[in-house]
Formats: sequence, C-alpha cells, structure tokens
Amino acid sequence: MASVPAPASATSAPSLKGTGAEVSSNGLVDNIHSFKASDLEIDLAQTQKPKPDLTGLAFGTVFTDHMLVVEWNSQVGWQRPRIQPFGNLSIHPACSALHYAVQLFEGMKAYRGADNRVRLFRPELNMNRMRKSAHRACLPGFDRAELLECIKKLVEVDEEWVPHSDSASLYIRPTFLGTEPSLGVKKPSQALLYVILSPVGSYFSTGAKPVSLWADSKYIRSWKGGTGDCKMGGNYGASIFAQYEAVDYGCQQVLWLYGDDHQITEVGTMNLFLYWTNEKGEEELATPPLDGIILPGITRQSILELAQKWREFKVCERYLTMSDLRHGLKENRVKEMFGSGTACVVSPVGRVLYQGENLQIPCQQENSLASRLMKELTDIQYGRTLSEWSLLV
Amino acid sequence: MASVPAPASATSAPSLKGTGAEVSSNGLVDNIHSFKASDLEIDLAQTQKPKPDLTGLAFGTVFTDHMLVVEWNSQVGWQRPRIQPFGNLSIHPACSALHYAVQLFEGMKAYRGADNRVRLFRPELNMNRMRKSAHRACLPGFDRAELLECIKKLVEVDEEWVPHSDSASLYIRPTFLGTEPSLGVKKPSQALLYVILSPVGSYFSTGAKPVSLWADSKYIRSWKGGTGDCKMGGNYGASIFAQYEAVDYGCQQVLWLYGDDHQITEVGTMNLFLYWTNEKGEEELATPPLDGIILPGITRQSILELAQKWREFKVCERYLTMSDLRHGLKENRVKEMFGSGTACVVSPVGRVLYQGENLQIPCQQENSLASRLMKELTDIQYGRTLSEWSLLV
Repeated sequence: MASVPAPASATSAPSLKGTGAEVSSNGLVDNIHSFKASDLEIDLAQTQKPKPDLTGLAFGTVFTDHMLVVEWNSQVGWQRPRIQPFGNLSIHPACSALHYAVQLFEGMKAYRGADNRVRLFRPELNMNRMRKSAHRACLPGFDRAELLECIKKLVEVDEEWVPHSDSASLYIRPTFLGTEPSLGVKKPSQALLYVILSPVGSYFSTGAKPVSLWADSKYIRSWKGGTGDCKMGGNYGASIFAQYEAVDYGCQQVLWLYGDDHQITEVGTMNLFLYWTNEKGEEELATPPLDGIILPGITRQSILELAQKWREFKVCERYLTMSDLRHGLKENRVKEMFGSGTACVVSPVGRVLYQGENLQIPCQQENSLASRLMKELTDIQYGRTLSEWSLLV
Repeated sequence: MASVPAPASATSAPSLKGTGAEVSSNGLVDNIHSFKASDLEIDLAQTQKPKPDLTGLAFGTVFTDHMLVVEWNSQVGWQRPRIQPFGNLSIHPACSALHYAVQLFEGMKAYRGADNRVRLFRPELNMNRMRKSAHRACLPGFDRAELLECIKKLVEVDEEWVPHSDSASLYIRPTFLGTEPSLGVKKPSQALLYVILSPVGSYFSTGAKPVSLWADSKYIRSWKGGTGDCKMGGNYGASIFAQYEAVDYGCQQVLWLYGDDHQITEVGTMNLFLYWTNEKGEEELATPPLDGIILPGITRQSILELAQKWREFKVCERYLTMSDLRHGLKENRVKEMFGSGTACVVSPVGRVLYQGENLQIPCQQENSLASRLMKELTDIQYGRTLSEWSLLV
C-alpha cells in the first residue's frame, strides 16, 4: 500500500480557478478562447409573431422571434455566434444533454422603464454563475463579457417584445448543452449554447398572495458533494415529483429540508429568507449559507446587500432548522418568511405544513419587509431608482 | 395550528402502485392507455450504412439504420409507434428534457448466438425499471409488454446489425424525454419515447483488465430522497466531473461513497460486489442493498440469483464500508471485488485509492468468481446455456 500525493489539478470544490475565468470586482475579465460578439451573424426572421396578452399567461410559454445560438466542438473550439429566427433545434438522438443531463441554464430578465429604456439587472452575476455551472458540468469555458454582449444584441433585436409594463418583463433563458453524439458517459466533445426570450407576467398564478409550503424530508433537493449550488437541469427534474406531492397535501410549493435536524434550505425553485427576532433577541434577516447545497441566487445576494446597507437589523447567512422556526412561531418571534428568485422576485410564505401541523406564518400585506424589498428591487430593475446594478441595453 | 391527515395518494416512496402497472411474476401485465405494437408504422431507410469494425470502436458511437419513436401528449395520449430511419430529432428550444433533465433511459443488449438466433437478456426487468423511472420523472405510463414488442420489432428490422461475435452485441438504448415546450418547472404535457441501437464491443478500453478506483467522499453520486435508484439522466451528468478527477489521481473510475462511515455504494456507472470472508468468518458475496441510493441493476440481480442458486457461499445484500474493506484486506479476507453492469457485464477491481493509500485488491485472472459469473452470464446471453432469462427475438 503506497502513499499517493494529491495531484495539483485536484483542488477542493469546483471553482473557476485555472479555468481562465478570473472574476474581477468591477467586471468580467476572461482570458480564454471564446466566441466574440463582434463576430455575430444576424439572420432576421421573415415574419414577426403577434405579441401576446400577458394577463393570465403561464410562465415561459411564448417566445420571441429570434434566438442566439453558438456551437462548440473540441476540434476547432467556438464557432461564430448567430442570432437567427426562433425555431426547433436539430439534435442527435444520442446527445449527452438528453441521456446524461449534461445541461445547465440561467434565468434573467430585461425590464422596460417608464423612460422607455430597457435594462438588465446585475447580468454579470448570471454570467459568473453560468461559467461555474459549465465548469461543474464539464462544458467548455467562454468569455462572460462576450456572451453578455451577445445577449444584449439579442434583446435589442427583439426589443419590441420587452413589455410596456411596470410588472411584466422579458425573461431571458441562456441554456448550455453537451451535444456529444455518443453514449459513453464522458466530457462532451460538442456543445451548444443558446439563448431564448419569453415575455412574462407574474410567476405565481396567485400573484403576490402568500404561498403555502409542504415541509418533509422524504425528498431532498440537493446534498453535499452534489450539484445543488449549480444551475444544472438535474436539480429541477428530480424536484417535480415532490412538487406534485406538495399539491396533494394542499400546498403550492415544497420547503426543501436537509439533514437529520431538518435544516430549512430552499423553497420550490427559490431561495428562502426568515425575518424574525432570533434566539438571542436580535432582529435578524436570515438565509442559509452557500455551503454547497444552496443555489447562489442573484435576488438572494441583492436582498442581503440591500438589507446590509440599511443597517436597520442584523443580516445573516446562517443555518435555520424547522425546530428554530417552530420555536420562533410559538414565541411570536417570527415576523415574515419569503422566497426570492428572478422569476418571482420576492414571494411571501403564509403557511408551512410540517409533521401534520399547519404552521401559520405572519404576513402583513402592507409595510412588510417583503413588500419593501420588492419595491426597492423593482425600482432598480425598472429604472425608477438609479443604480449600478442596472445595465442599459 | 390544525392537524392535517395524509392524502390517500401520497404513499411512501415512488412505486408502481396505482400507476396501472402491476408486476406479475411471469410477465408484464399492464392495464393502462398505451401505444400498441400492432399499430407500428414502419418506414424503412432508403440506404443502409456500412457495418463498422468493432475492434477498438468507442462505446455507443455508431448507430444502426433505424430507430423507434413514440410521441405522447396530455390531450390525446400516446400516438402510433413508428420505426423510421435513424436521424436527428427536432426539439423545441424550451423542451423540459433540455432545461430540467426530465429524461430517463435504459440499457439492454441483443446477442447473436452460435445458432445465429438473436436473444435479449431479461428485458422485462428493463421494462419494469423504465416504468419506475418514468413514474419518478413525472412522465406518462405505458404498457411494458407493448414497448418490449416494439423493441423486438426494431431489432428484427436492424437484425443484420447484431454482431456475429461471442463478445460483441447490439446495445439497445430506450430513452424517454419530457418535451414540454415551456419553462415552468412542472409535469410535462408532451413526451417522446425513442429507442436507438448501437453495435458495441467491450465497454472498457482495457478489456477484462482490472480497473482502478478513486474512493473519496468529495462527490456523492446519489442520496436518500433523491433519484439514485432510477435511471434518470441527472444521476450521470453530475458524475462526469468526479470521473475526471479520478483520472487526475491516476484511477479509471470513481468508487462512490456515502455517509460519514464511507459506505461503498457503486463504481462509476456499475453496481459493486465484494467477495470475501466476512467479519464472522463466513465466505460471502456481498453488494449494497437497494435502499434508495443504489441503481437496481439487472446484472446485479442476475448475479445475486445465480450465486444463490449455487448454494456454495453466503449471498447477501448488506452495507459495506471502506473500513470493512480495509480491515478485510489487512487480514487477507478479501478474495475479489468487481463491478457489474449491462455494458461491461462483470469488471474486476484491481486497486482502490483511498485517503492517499493504494489498496491492492486480489485479482486472480483464472478461476475467479468474476470470470465464472462472466462465463455463466454470457453463456445465457449468447444462447450456449438454455435459460428462461433469454428471450428470442
């Protein structure tokens, strides 16, 4: 039995280190082979689809006239990016995205302000996360600034699709697939990055009404050593079964628990916040830490940063268990609980079903922290508040 | 806080109960709306591709002339099944298989015997597992006997592609995708089931040589409350990153561990067996139990059943930890360790790298249990031994 030293390439968790992607504080600086926005080929659609009425429209069901497509293969690297008419993809039946879920996505939005200008919200954070997901999925790296520039061009081309509304927006869905056309479980030799756009209203059919959650440890969303901190498709498909069991129990979403102590981790496809007076009597806004099982949400990060800037209460990444929540409720220390995400922004929680008990969560409709955060964030997104978090298209 | 009773539809783990699929001991009896093999439409390819030389050919890179395709949607249910020329799929860019890994597959083989007859090996077990995966993935049910009949027809159409060889075979890859063309994370309203065929030689480039394994708890393949016991794509894509780290450490495959006690679970994409003298001094063939994190392999089940029939040593589904293995090796109690799967059949393990130590596993090339099982299984598969596990095409 011989001792073997660790190889230099095998450092701790998957990171951007050594992948050519160094995150600078004020922008995206990559130094790798990538496609370039200046090489964009644009093939405009011959006909334009009618714009839908967004009232009552289900999320992500209608798409714009164009899409961005960039192909990669291991022989020649990235091809020229193309904006082309929206249409079906031609995919090999052995494609690794279809068999082994070598796939990831991002979710971001374009907002039209009262000034009629179109803005993105902290898109560089989506680009960072997408690079990190690509690394974990064994998909090739790309220059984040170039992809962002291509996305801006796509939104420009379909600019009329950005709703004239202060609640609707144009949802942007970057997608990245392994398109290896063979059945070995391995790093793909071909890949396809594309971006599609969908005008959307409010994510939940109940609007801003508080959601009800089913908290049970029967299904676990993600786990240490898995991919829960990356936006990979496998995290989502596995969750649908639990979602329907939640509905069977009369709830709208799953409250994902973890570990024997039933840690509270996420809600449906959102991050989770608890606003309460903690065990030490401190007023606190808390969300679980990014320990590998939590998706690093951009709305999550923005809420933490906003609330920290206010300096009105403690803002904290910490573990929260169902026992913490139950005690807090019994002692009337819980003020609010809400989910956060790009699709919904902020979504108050009204009820948690746990171990056969309905835990009622306080929900003031007015003057709540949730509605204050919703207003601050949407004010930035729709350009009513000037912010460096906004990027004009 | 009111008490809420469990709804009738929310029983324990996902099972076939109530899905219209009742597994009978001697066959597949389903009673649900399904496509029918008698409705098969056959559209033959105009030209036939040349058959490849299988020597040195990478696994699953060449496909036959035809494929089976069956579409489903929630309005009208299953469409007529079609055998059509092998070719690319036309897929909506918002397809739920591409974004949320609503996807699953199966792996089985057709073998040509010395009698020139073509046989499948226990295909009803693949059909059972596929139904179970479909249930977990929120994909529609189907009649397993009808799908098996369609697969037999497909193999018949491409019968010349079944290699004339006693080590090569025709790999059969049933695939089932959610093709919902919208971005909500939900049960798909459209789905596509298809089957492709690929002539294959030996899975590992090293042939029957023992494989080396990297055992580390940094990456976890599957976990309680997840999908590790279903053949869903997300289990596989997430594993590729770890596989390359294993290669960085000079190993060929990952030995997947679980829990603080470093339970031994699976190897790469195979089930795992330990043949040893156990702690009580009993000669034992052991493999981890199907507790939710282990894929219920058909080769695994067949090995257990064969060895039980022999009545020569204890055959047992039990937990095995790295500590058990290390102690067994120190005390010279370990006889063999091997992986099992459809692609490789039986694959001996020669070395395990664990906590910086190379654990050498005994590997007799001749008269080993691995080679005996390999012979018994392939004798059945290639029709040299008559068995009810064989199904003639």
